[in-house]
Amino acid sequence: MGLASKIAKYMNCDMADYKSSRFPDNEIYTKIDTPLDEEDVIVIGNTNTDSNIISYLLLLDAAKEQNPKKLIALIPYFGYARQHKVYNKGEAIASKVLAKSIANFADAIIAIELHDEQTLSYISKPFENLKIKNPIYNFFKDKSIDYVVSPDDGGYARSLDMAKLLGCNAYYIDKKRLDANTVEMKLPEVNFNKKNVLLLDDMISTGNTMLSAIDLISDKGANNIYCCAIHGIFAGGSDSKIKDKIDELVVTDTIESEYSKLSVAADVAEYLKSLGF
Amino acid sequence: MGLASKIAKYMNCDMADYKSSRFPDNEIYTKIDTPLDEEDVIVIGNTNTDSNIISYLLLLDAAKEQNPKKLIALIPYFGYARQHKVYNKGEAIASKVLAKSIANFADAIIAIELHDEQTLSYISKPFENLKIKNPIYNFFKDKSIDYVVSPDDGGYARSLDMAKLLGCNAYYIDKKRLDANTVEMKLPEVNFNKKNVLLLDDMISTGNTMLSAIDLISDKGANNIYCCAIHGIFAGGSDSKIKDKIDELVVTDTIESEYSKLSVAADVAEYLKSLGF
Repeated sequence: MGLASKIAKYMNCDMADYKSSRFPDNEIYTKIDTPLDEEDVIVIGNTNTDSNIISYLLLLDAAKEQNPKKLIALIPYFGYARQHKVYNKGEAIASKVLAKSIANFADAIIAIELHDEQTLSYISKPFENLKIKNPIYNFFKDKSIDYVVSPDDGGYARSLDMAKLLGCNAYYIDKKRLDANTVEMKLPEVNFNKKNVLLLDDMISTGNTMLSAIDLISDKGANNIYCCAIHGIFAGGSDSKIKDKIDELVVTDTIESEYSKLSVAADVAEYLKSLGF
Repeated sequence: MGLASKIAKYMNCDMADYKSSRFPDNEIYTKIDTPLDEEDVIVIGNTNTDSNIISYLLLLDAAKEQNPKKLIALIPYFGYARQHKVYNKGEAIASKVLAKSIANFADAIIAIELHDEQTLSYISKPFENLKIKNPIYNFFKDKSIDYVVSPDDGGYARSLDMAKLLGCNAYYIDKKRLDANTVEMKLPEVNFNKKNVLLLDDMISTGNTMLSAIDLISDKGANNIYCCAIHGIFAGGSDSKIKDKIDELVVTDTIESEYSKLSVAADVAEYLKSLGF
């Protein structure tokens, strides 16, 4: 993972070598080749696919087995974080399942821009939700952004923070679910004509919310429209649908893609240093 | 899973309804529709693929969230059980990862014919390794078996037990690893000519050991050769390679396939009843 080596560089620490392969019955084999005894170890991995989760748990255990001094689980994109509570009786709390499974092996967990902080409450070990602002600010500071807009009210605080840094205004789009198949989205009553708009969210998955927001703002005669998210999941190829409608689509390297023009590495390294690493 | 409904029938208990689907980003959604509050609940699932493991952990959590009186994790085929210790420094103990992850949600774990009992030591909650004999005995008792043979020394105790029940002799094949690519297999010094032989093992994965054993015994002029295992994994289509060389291939329904002519359901139900369920 390119992000891991960037973080290692900022931290001035070594990358451990490991190999991962599959047995004929498709079970994953994991071996860390670098001795980790009595070392401070940070194990980096995403929890967004079945295979990533199993690989990551095995890697954590392989590190733990070597008796490191401290073992930190750093999860750039914490998958399953939208399933953070029981919406309807009978449902699993998937983000809890992940947090507990990881906490069996790690002394502490650091997630980046977790979708909902309720997940932090499911384990008793230290669990930090690291917010990312600097790379977004640095990328957009010279782009004369007039408005930072969150595609729904849940992301308004993030947009407000960024607007303050950029010295502009923040808004959110009022999203109302009318029934199972219909969502009404209502722009704030401000003038978008010839304005440069940054649409900012924590993640882009199917991109449906983002695409609707783009259409609404575009119809109002906006000048440049930028889309930015921390996590670019791009389910169903939503990246190309978005890209075609706007001036620029950028995400961070928590999930690496061609749109990962922002890196969280410096912010992560700074945070780790603040913990004494 | 057919096994679950068979067990429910023997236990005279209800099957809970649940649904499992995938979100557009491929995360698994799980919901148990049957109320489980204050009930004794047995959640049945295998841990032999990445998806099975994640699905199973979510199902356990969905059950746990309903505050059952007792929650038992029953794992017919406990995958990753061959990775039960560190063979070379740096390796993960995969069976421990699974046991700990499951123990986060279940009050107790029951596995069927676990490959190695070391895995039982990795959690402090009750963890039972249920041995299966009856369905094997019932299937082979009228087949005039002369010898029960384990394809390696690790399975000798199982073969000995079965031979005692069947009233015949047990042997094992001496398997020596000469180097990374060469294994020497040596038959016991007994007369196989015109004998009916039951080759018995805990699992058939690539089938390589079983196939070599079949060839050796076949060359000695055996009459009927039967292959039986608890868990039929059949990696790389090994089932058809084996089937073509012998009289009959049978496994249990811990992993369901066309060869699952034996069911562990009655033995599991009897054990659960002995626990007071």
